[in-house]
Amino acid sequence: MEIKKISSAVIKRLPRYYRYLGDLLEKDVVRISSRELSEKMGVTASQIRQDLNNFGGFGQQGYGYNVEHLYHEIGKILGLEHKYNIIIVGAGNLGQALANYASFEKRGFYIKSLFDVNPRLIGLSIRGIEIRDIDEMEKFVKEHDIQLAVLTLPKMKAPKIANDLVKWGIQAIWNFSPIDLNVPSDIVVENVHLLESLMTLSYTLNEKLKKDKEKK
Amino acid sequence: MEIKKISSAVIKRLPRYYRYLGDLLEKDVVRISSRELSEKMGVTASQIRQDLNNFGGFGQQGYGYNVEHLYHEIGKILGLEHKYNIIIVGAGNLGQALANYASFEKRGFYIKSLFDVNPRLIGLSIRGIEIRDIDEMEKFVKEHDIQLAVLTLPKMKAPKIANDLVKWGIQAIWNFSPIDLNVPSDIVVENVHLLESLMTLSYTLNEKLKKDKEKK
Repeated sequence: MEIKKISSAVIKRLPRYYRYLGDLLEKDVVRISSRELSEKMGVTASQIRQDLNNFGGFGQQGYGYNVEHLYHEIGKILGLEHKYNIIIVGAGNLGQALANYASFEKRGFYIKSLFDVNPRLIGLSIRGIEIRDIDEMEKFVKEHDIQLAVLTLPKMKAPKIANDLVKWGIQAIWNFSPIDLNVPSDIVVENVHLLESLMTLSYTLNEKLKKDKEKK
Repeated sequence: MEIKKISSAVIKRLPRYYRYLGDLLEKDVVRISSRELSEKMGVTASQIRQDLNNFGGFGQQGYGYNVEHLYHEIGKILGLEHKYNIIIVGAGNLGQALANYASFEKRGFYIKSLFDVNPRLIGLSIRGIEIRDIDEMEKFVKEHDIQLAVLTLPKMKAPKIANDLVKWGIQAIWNFSPIDLNVPSDIVVENVHLLESLMTLSYTLNEKLKKDKEKK
Protein backbone atom coordinates (compact mmCIF):
# COMPACT_ATOMS: atom_id res chain seq x y z
CA MET A 1 0.00 0.00 0.00
CA GLU A 2 1.32 3.43 -1.02
CA ILE A 3 1.15 6.00 1.79
CA LYS A 4 1.25 9.71 1.05
CA LYS A 5 2.59 12.33 3.45
CA ILE A 6 -0.21 12.78 5.94
CA SER A 7 -1.13 16.02 7.70
CA SER A 8 -1.00 16.15 11.48
CA ALA A 9 -4.70 17.08 11.60
CA VAL A 10 -5.53 13.77 9.94
CA ILE A 11 -3.19 11.91 12.28
CA LYS A 12 -4.93 13.41 15.28
CA ARG A 13 -8.26 12.09 14.00
CA LEU A 14 -7.03 8.55 13.34
CA PRO A 15 -7.23 7.23 16.92
CA ARG A 16 -10.88 8.27 16.98
CA TYR A 17 -11.62 6.36 13.75
CA TYR A 18 -9.79 3.45 15.26
CA ARG A 19 -11.90 3.60 18.41
CA TYR A 20 -15.19 3.74 16.48
CA LEU A 21 -14.16 0.91 14.18
CA GLY A 22 -13.10 -1.15 17.19
CA ASP A 23 -16.55 -0.61 18.74
CA LEU A 24 -18.21 -1.69 15.49
CA LEU A 25 -16.01 -4.78 15.34
CA GLU A 26 -17.04 -5.71 18.87
CA LYS A 27 -20.65 -5.54 17.67
CA ASP A 28 -19.78 -7.81 14.72
CA VAL A 29 -20.51 -5.13 12.15
CA VAL A 30 -18.90 -6.25 8.87
CA ARG A 31 -19.22 -3.15 6.74
CA ILE A 32 -20.28 0.45 7.04
CA SER A 33 -20.91 3.28 4.59
CA SER A 34 -19.16 6.61 5.06
CA ARG A 35 -22.64 8.11 5.63
CA GLU A 36 -23.40 5.76 8.54
CA LEU A 37 -19.93 6.24 10.00
CA SER A 38 -20.29 10.01 9.67
CA GLU A 39 -23.60 9.97 11.58
CA LYS A 40 -22.05 7.95 14.38
CA MET A 41 -18.96 10.12 14.62
CA GLY A 42 -20.59 13.50 14.10
CA VAL A 43 -18.31 14.47 11.21
CA THR A 44 -19.23 14.86 7.54
CA ALA A 45 -19.11 11.89 5.19
CA SER A 46 -16.86 13.86 2.87
CA GLN A 47 -14.39 14.46 5.69
CA ILE A 48 -14.27 10.74 6.34
CA ARG A 49 -13.74 9.93 2.65
CA GLN A 50 -11.03 12.57 2.41
CA ASP A 51 -9.26 11.41 5.55
CA LEU A 52 -9.28 7.77 4.55
CA ASN A 53 -8.26 8.56 0.96
CA ASN A 54 -4.89 9.55 2.44
CA PHE A 55 -4.24 5.87 2.92
CA GLY A 56 -5.34 4.73 -0.50
CA GLY A 57 -9.05 4.93 0.29
CA PHE A 58 -10.33 1.67 1.66
CA GLY A 59 -13.93 2.20 0.59
CA GLN A 60 -15.69 0.77 -2.41
CA GLN A 61 -18.54 2.51 -4.23
CA GLY A 62 -21.84 0.93 -3.20
CA TYR A 63 -20.20 -1.23 -0.52
CA GLY A 64 -18.70 1.19 1.95
CA TYR A 65 -15.87 0.14 4.22
CA ASN A 66 -14.99 -3.30 5.44
CA VAL A 67 -14.79 -2.64 9.18
CA GLU A 68 -12.19 -5.22 10.09
CA HIS A 69 -9.90 -4.36 7.18
CA LEU A 70 -10.08 -0.64 7.83
CA TYR A 71 -9.53 -1.18 11.57
CA HIS A 72 -6.36 -3.15 10.93
CA GLU A 73 -5.04 -0.76 8.30
CA ILE A 74 -5.49 2.24 10.59
CA GLY A 75 -3.90 0.23 13.38
CA LYS A 76 -0.87 -0.34 11.15
CA ILE A 77 -0.62 3.36 10.33
CA LEU A 78 -0.75 4.15 14.04
CA GLY A 79 2.13 1.77 14.60
CA LEU A 80 -0.03 -0.63 16.61
CA GLU A 81 1.22 -3.78 14.90
CA HIS A 82 4.42 -3.31 16.86
CA LYS A 83 5.00 -4.20 20.46
CA TYR A 84 6.29 -1.49 22.74
CA ASN A 85 7.89 -2.15 26.11
CA ILE A 86 6.92 0.46 28.65
CA ILE A 87 7.84 1.47 32.15
CA ILE A 88 5.87 3.77 34.40
CA VAL A 89 7.95 6.11 36.54
CA GLY A 90 6.00 7.21 39.58
CA ALA A 91 3.76 4.56 41.13
CA GLY A 92 1.31 6.82 42.92
CA ASN A 93 -2.41 6.73 42.15
CA LEU A 94 -2.01 7.92 38.60
CA GLY A 95 0.83 5.52 37.82
CA GLN A 96 -1.20 2.70 39.33
CA ALA A 97 -4.30 3.76 37.41
CA LEU A 98 -2.34 3.63 34.15
CA ALA A 99 -0.85 0.24 35.07
CA ASN A 100 -4.40 -1.00 35.51
CA TYR A 101 -5.43 -0.19 31.93
CA ALA A 102 -5.52 -3.65 30.42
CA SER A 103 -6.59 -2.05 27.14
CA PHE A 104 -3.06 -0.75 26.59
CA GLU A 105 -1.78 -4.30 26.18
CA LYS A 106 -4.45 -5.15 23.65
CA ARG A 107 -2.91 -2.39 21.49
CA GLY A 108 0.64 -3.60 21.91
CA PHE A 109 1.79 -1.46 24.85
CA TYR A 110 3.33 -3.77 27.42
CA ILE A 111 3.97 -2.29 30.84
CA LYS A 112 7.03 -4.10 32.17
CA SER A 113 7.56 -2.39 35.50
CA LEU A 114 6.68 0.58 37.65
CA PHE A 115 9.33 2.52 39.55
CA ASP A 116 9.10 4.63 42.67
CA VAL A 117 11.19 5.94 45.57
CA ASN A 118 8.56 5.17 48.19
CA PRO A 119 9.63 2.10 50.22
CA ARG A 120 6.00 1.34 51.04
CA LEU A 121 5.25 0.88 47.35
CA ILE A 122 8.42 -0.94 46.27
CA GLY A 123 7.79 -4.68 45.99
CA LEU A 124 4.03 -4.35 45.49
CA SER A 125 2.44 -5.47 42.24
CA ILE A 126 -0.33 -4.05 40.07
CA ARG A 127 -1.95 -6.71 37.86
CA GLY A 128 1.23 -8.71 38.28
CA ILE A 129 3.45 -5.78 37.31
CA GLU A 130 6.04 -5.13 39.99
CA ILE A 131 6.87 -1.76 41.51
CA ARG A 132 10.66 -1.53 41.70
CA ASP A 133 13.11 0.81 43.38
CA ILE A 134 13.96 3.69 41.09
CA ASP A 135 17.65 2.91 41.69
CA GLU A 136 17.18 -0.27 39.65
CA MET A 137 15.74 1.62 36.70
CA GLU A 138 18.91 2.10 34.65
CA LYS A 139 19.71 -1.59 34.66
CA PHE A 140 16.11 -2.53 33.93
CA VAL A 141 15.74 -0.14 30.99
CA LYS A 142 18.93 -1.39 29.40
CA GLU A 143 18.19 -5.09 29.94
CA HIS A 144 14.51 -5.12 28.93
CA ASP A 145 14.56 -3.14 25.69
CA ILE A 146 12.28 -0.41 27.04
CA GLN A 147 11.28 2.09 24.33
CA LEU A 148 8.71 4.16 26.14
CA ALA A 149 8.52 5.71 29.61
CA VAL A 150 5.41 7.09 31.24
CA LEU A 151 6.21 9.91 33.66
CA THR A 152 3.82 10.61 36.51
CA LEU A 153 6.36 12.42 38.68
CA PRO A 154 6.17 15.72 40.54
CA LYS A 155 7.36 18.54 38.31
CA MET A 156 10.60 19.03 40.26
CA LYS A 157 11.72 15.47 39.65
CA ALA A 158 10.63 14.98 36.05
CA PRO A 159 13.40 16.83 34.15
CA LYS A 160 16.31 14.91 35.65
CA ILE A 161 14.62 11.54 35.28
CA ALA A 162 13.66 12.36 31.69
CA ASN A 163 17.28 13.18 30.87
CA ASP A 164 18.50 9.97 32.50
CA LEU A 165 15.97 7.90 30.58
CA VAL A 166 17.07 9.43 27.28
CA LYS A 167 20.68 8.66 28.14
CA TRP A 168 19.72 5.05 28.77
CA GLY A 169 18.06 4.69 25.36
CA ILE A 170 14.39 5.55 25.87
CA GLN A 171 12.83 6.75 22.59
CA ALA A 172 9.55 8.20 23.73
CA ILE A 173 8.01 9.77 26.83
CA TRP A 174 4.34 9.92 27.69
CA ASN A 175 4.49 12.80 30.12
CA PHE A 176 1.88 13.41 32.81
CA SER A 177 4.15 15.66 34.88
CA PRO A 178 3.02 19.29 34.80
CA ILE A 179 6.16 20.53 33.09
CA ASP A 180 7.50 20.73 29.53
CA LEU A 181 10.47 18.40 29.15
CA ASN A 182 13.63 19.67 27.59
CA VAL A 183 14.82 16.55 25.73
CA PRO A 184 16.55 16.16 22.32
CA SER A 185 14.20 16.76 19.40
CA ASP A 186 14.40 13.17 18.18
CA ILE A 187 12.79 11.93 21.39
CA VAL A 188 9.04 11.62 20.99
CA VAL A 189 7.13 13.39 23.76
CA GLU A 190 3.37 13.35 24.18
CA ASN A 191 2.09 15.49 27.04
CA VAL A 192 -1.07 14.97 29.05
CA HIS A 193 -1.40 18.11 31.15
CA LEU A 194 -4.48 17.40 33.23
CA LEU A 195 -4.73 20.74 34.97
CA GLU A 196 -4.52 22.50 31.61
CA SER A 197 -7.32 20.37 30.24
CA LEU A 198 -9.42 21.31 33.27
CA MET A 199 -8.62 24.99 32.71
CA THR A 200 -9.75 24.79 29.09
CA LEU A 201 -13.01 23.34 30.37
CA SER A 202 -13.25 26.08 32.97
CA TYR A 203 -12.79 28.78 30.31
CA THR A 204 -15.65 27.38 28.22
CA LEU A 205 -17.86 26.85 31.25
CA ASN A 206 -17.22 30.38 32.45
CA GLU A 207 -18.09 31.83 29.02
CA LYS A 208 -21.31 29.80 29.01
CA LEU A 209 -22.28 30.93 32.51
CA LYS A 210 -21.70 34.55 31.51
CA LYS A 211 -23.93 34.15 28.46
CA ASP A 212 -26.63 32.41 30.51
CA LYS A 213 -26.61 35.35 32.90
CA GLU A 214 -26.91 37.90 30.08
CA LYS A 215 -29.97 36.07 28.74
CA LYS A 216 -31.78 36.39 32.08
CA MET B 1 -10.76 45.65 30.72
CA GLU B 2 -12.16 45.28 27.20
CA ILE B 3 -11.95 41.71 25.92
CA LYS B 4 -12.11 40.96 22.21
CA LYS B 5 -13.45 37.74 20.74
CA ILE B 6 -10.59 35.30 21.21
CA SER B 7 -9.68 32.47 18.86
CA SER B 8 -9.74 28.94 20.19
CA ALA B 9 -6.05 28.50 19.30
CA VAL B 10 -5.20 31.33 21.70
CA ILE B 11 -7.46 29.86 24.39
CA LYS B 12 -5.70 26.54 24.12
CA ARG B 13 -2.37 28.26 24.75
CA LEU B 14 -3.55 30.22 27.80
CA PRO B 15 -3.24 27.42 30.39
CA ARG B 16 0.37 26.99 29.37
CA TYR B 17 1.08 30.71 29.86
CA TYR B 18 -0.69 30.43 33.18
CA ARG B 19 1.49 27.51 34.21
CA TYR B 20 4.75 29.26 33.28
CA LEU B 21 3.73 32.46 35.03
CA GLY B 22 2.75 30.45 38.12
CA ASP B 23 6.21 28.85 38.12
CA LEU B 24 7.83 32.29 37.84
CA LEU B 25 5.68 33.58 40.69
CA GLU B 26 6.79 30.69 42.87
CA LYS B 27 10.36 31.77 42.18
CA ASP B 28 9.47 35.36 43.17
CA VAL B 29 10.12 36.71 39.68
CA VAL B 30 8.47 40.13 39.50
CA ARG B 31 8.70 40.94 35.82
CA ILE B 32 9.71 39.28 32.58
CA SER B 33 10.25 40.43 29.01
CA SER B 34 8.46 38.72 26.15
CA ARG B 35 11.88 37.64 24.90
CA GLU B 36 12.75 35.88 28.17
CA LEU B 37 9.31 34.32 28.38
CA SER B 38 9.61 33.16 24.77
CA GLU B 39 12.94 31.46 25.46
CA LYS B 40 11.48 29.63 28.43
CA MET B 41 8.35 28.54 26.58
CA GLY B 42 9.92 27.74 23.22
CA VAL B 43 7.59 30.01 21.26
CA THR B 44 8.42 33.25 19.47
CA ALA B 45 8.29 36.56 21.33
CA SER B 46 5.98 37.92 18.66
CA GLN B 47 3.55 35.05 19.25
CA ILE B 48 3.51 35.90 22.95
CA ARG B 49 2.91 39.58 22.26
CA GLN B 50 0.16 38.78 19.79
CA ASP B 51 -1.54 36.31 22.12
CA LEU B 52 -1.47 38.64 25.09
CA ASN B 53 -2.56 41.63 23.02
CA ASN B 54 -5.91 39.87 22.75
CA PHE B 55 -6.48 40.82 26.35
CA GLY B 56 -5.43 44.41 26.06
CA GLY B 57 -1.71 43.68 26.09
CA PHE B 58 -0.34 43.67 29.59
CA GLY B 59 3.22 44.48 28.62
CA GLN B 60 4.97 47.82 28.75
CA GLN B 61 7.73 48.87 26.39
CA GLY B 62 11.06 48.55 28.19
CA TYR B 63 9.53 46.91 31.23
CA GLY B 64 8.01 43.67 29.99
CA TYR B 65 5.25 41.95 31.87
CA ASN B 66 4.45 42.14 35.54
CA VAL B 67 4.31 38.43 36.36
CA GLU B 68 1.77 38.55 39.15
CA HIS B 69 -0.59 40.87 37.30
CA LEU B 70 -0.46 38.84 34.11
CA TYR B 71 -0.94 35.60 36.06
CA HIS B 72 -4.08 36.90 37.70
CA GLU B 73 -5.48 38.40 34.49
CA ILE B 74 -5.05 35.15 32.60
CA GLY B 75 -6.57 33.33 35.56
CA LYS B 76 -9.63 35.56 35.30
CA ILE B 77 -9.95 34.92 31.58
CA LEU B 78 -9.76 31.18 32.28
CA GLY B 79 -12.60 31.54 34.74
CA LEU B 80 -10.36 30.62 37.68
CA GLU B 81 -11.59 33.39 39.98
CA HIS B 82 -14.79 31.36 40.34
CA LYS B 83 -15.29 28.37 42.55
CA TYR B 84 -16.56 25.21 40.96
CA ASN B 85 -18.08 22.33 42.86
CA ILE B 86 -17.10 18.99 41.41
CA ILE B 87 -17.96 15.35 41.82
CA ILE B 88 -15.98 12.42 40.51
CA VAL B 89 -18.06 9.54 39.19
CA GLY B 90 -16.08 6.33 39.32
CA ALA B 91 -13.75 5.94 42.30
CA GLY B 92 -11.30 3.44 40.85
CA ASN B 93 -7.59 4.24 40.56
CA LEU B 94 -8.08 7.06 38.11
CA GLY B 95 -10.90 8.65 40.10
CA GLN B 96 -8.80 8.36 43.23
CA ALA B 97 -5.76 9.78 41.46
CA LEU B 98 -7.77 12.82 40.39
CA ALA B 99 -9.20 13.25 43.90
CA ASN B 100 -5.62 13.36 45.16
CA TYR B 101 -4.66 16.37 43.01
CA ALA B 102 -4.56 19.09 45.65
CA SER B 103 -3.59 21.51 42.90
CA PHE B 104 -7.15 21.47 41.55
CA GLU B 105 -8.41 23.20 44.69
CA LYS B 106 -5.76 25.89 44.48
CA ARG B 107 -7.38 26.83 41.14
CA GLY B 108 -10.93 26.85 42.49
CA PHE B 109 -12.02 23.31 41.64
CA TYR B 110 -13.51 21.79 44.80
CA ILE B 111 -14.08 18.05 44.73
CA LYS B 112 -17.09 17.49 46.97
CA SER B 113 -17.55 13.74 46.67
CA LEU B 114 -16.68 10.63 44.71
CA PHE B 115 -19.32 8.10 43.69
CA ASP B 116 -19.07 4.42 42.93
CA VAL B 117 -21.12 1.23 42.87
CA ASN B 118 -18.43 -0.88 44.53
CA PRO B 119 -19.42 -1.60 48.16
CA ARG B 120 -15.75 -2.03 49.11
CA LEU B 121 -15.08 1.58 48.11
CA ILE B 122 -18.24 3.24 49.43
CA GLY B 123 -17.58 4.92 52.78
CA LEU B 124 -13.84 5.31 52.23
CA SER B 125 -12.30 8.76 52.00
CA ILE B 126 -9.57 10.26 49.81
CA ARG B 127 -7.97 13.34 51.40
CA GLY B 128 -11.13 13.68 53.46
CA ILE B 129 -13.40 13.42 50.42
CA GLU B 130 -15.95 10.66 50.87
CA ILE B 131 -16.79 7.97 48.34
CA ARG B 132 -20.58 7.65 48.28
CA ASP B 133 -23.01 5.17 46.80
CA ILE B 134 -23.95 6.18 43.28
CA ASP B 135 -27.62 5.88 44.30
CA GLU B 136 -27.14 8.98 46.46
CA MET B 137 -25.77 11.00 43.57
CA GLU B 138 -29.00 12.69 42.38
CA LYS B 139 -29.76 14.07 45.83
CA PHE B 140 -26.15 15.14 46.35
CA VAL B 141 -25.84 16.95 43.02
CA LYS B 142 -29.06 18.87 43.62
CA GLU B 143 -28.28 19.78 47.22
CA HIS B 144 -24.62 20.77 46.81
CA ASP B 145 -24.75 23.00 43.74
CA ILE B 146 -22.47 20.76 41.70
CA GLN B 147 -21.56 22.30 38.33
CA LEU B 148 -18.97 19.88 37.07
CA ALA B 149 -18.75 16.09 36.94
CA VAL B 150 -15.62 14.08 36.21
CA LEU B 151 -16.42 10.76 34.55
CA THR B 152 -13.98 7.88 34.95
CA LEU B 153 -16.51 5.16 34.14
CA PRO B 154 -16.33 2.19 31.79
CA LYS B 155 -17.60 3.17 28.37
CA MET B 156 -20.82 1.12 28.72
CA LYS B 157 -21.90 3.03 31.81
CA ALA B 158 -20.86 6.55 30.87
CA PRO B 159 -23.69 7.57 28.48
CA LYS B 160 -26.57 6.89 30.89
CA ILE B 161 -24.83 8.54 33.84
CA ALA B 162 -23.94 11.56 31.69
CA ASN B 163 -27.59 11.97 30.68
CA ASP B 164 -28.73 11.66 34.30
CA LEU B 165 -26.19 14.25 35.43
CA VAL B 166 -27.38 16.72 32.78
CA LYS B 167 -30.98 16.16 33.89
CA TRP B 168 -29.94 16.98 37.46
CA GLY B 169 -28.37 20.26 36.44
CA ILE B 170 -24.69 19.52 35.78
CA GLN B 171 -23.22 22.11 33.39
CA ALA B 172 -19.92 20.55 32.42
CA ILE B 173 -18.35 17.11 32.11
CA TRP B 174 -14.65 16.30 32.21
CA ASN B 175 -14.79 12.97 30.47
CA PHE B 176 -12.13 10.26 30.88
CA SER B 177 -14.41 7.46 29.65
CA PRO B 178 -13.33 6.15 26.24
CA ILE B 179 -16.53 7.24 24.48
CA ASP B 180 -17.94 10.43 22.98
CA LEU B 181 -20.86 11.62 25.07
CA ASN B 182 -24.07 12.57 23.35
CA VAL B 183 -25.27 15.45 25.55
CA PRO B 184 -27.05 18.72 24.65
CA SER B 185 -24.77 21.24 22.94
CA ASP B 186 -24.97 23.73 25.80
CA ILE B 187 -23.26 21.26 28.12
CA VAL B 188 -19.50 21.79 28.19
CA VAL B 189 -17.57 18.58 27.56
CA GLU B 190 -13.80 18.24 27.70
CA ASN B 191 -12.50 14.80 26.78
CA VAL B 192 -9.29 13.18 27.96
CA HIS B 193 -8.97 10.05 25.86
CA LEU B 194 -5.83 8.45 27.23
CA LEU B 195 -5.60 5.57 24.80
CA GLU B 196 -5.88 8.01 21.89
CA SER B 197 -3.10 10.11 23.31
CA LEU B 198 -0.95 6.99 23.55
CA MET B 199 -1.79 6.10 19.93
CA THR B 200 -0.73 9.53 18.73
CA LEU B 201 2.56 8.95 20.50
CA SER B 202 2.82 5.50 18.95
CA TYR B 203 2.27 6.94 15.45
CA THR B 204 5.10 9.43 15.90
CA LEU B 205 7.38 6.87 17.51
CA ASN B 206 6.73 4.41 14.70
CA GLU B 207 7.52 7.03 12.02
CA LYS B 208 10.74 7.87 13.86
CA LEU B 209 11.77 4.21 14.11
CA LYS B 210 11.11 3.74 10.39
CA LYS B 211 13.30 6.76 9.56
CA ASP B 212 16.07 5.55 11.92
CA LYS B 213 16.04 2.23 10.10
CA GLU B 214 16.26 3.88 6.66
CA LYS B 215 19.28 5.84 7.77
CA LYS B 216 21.15 2.70 8.70
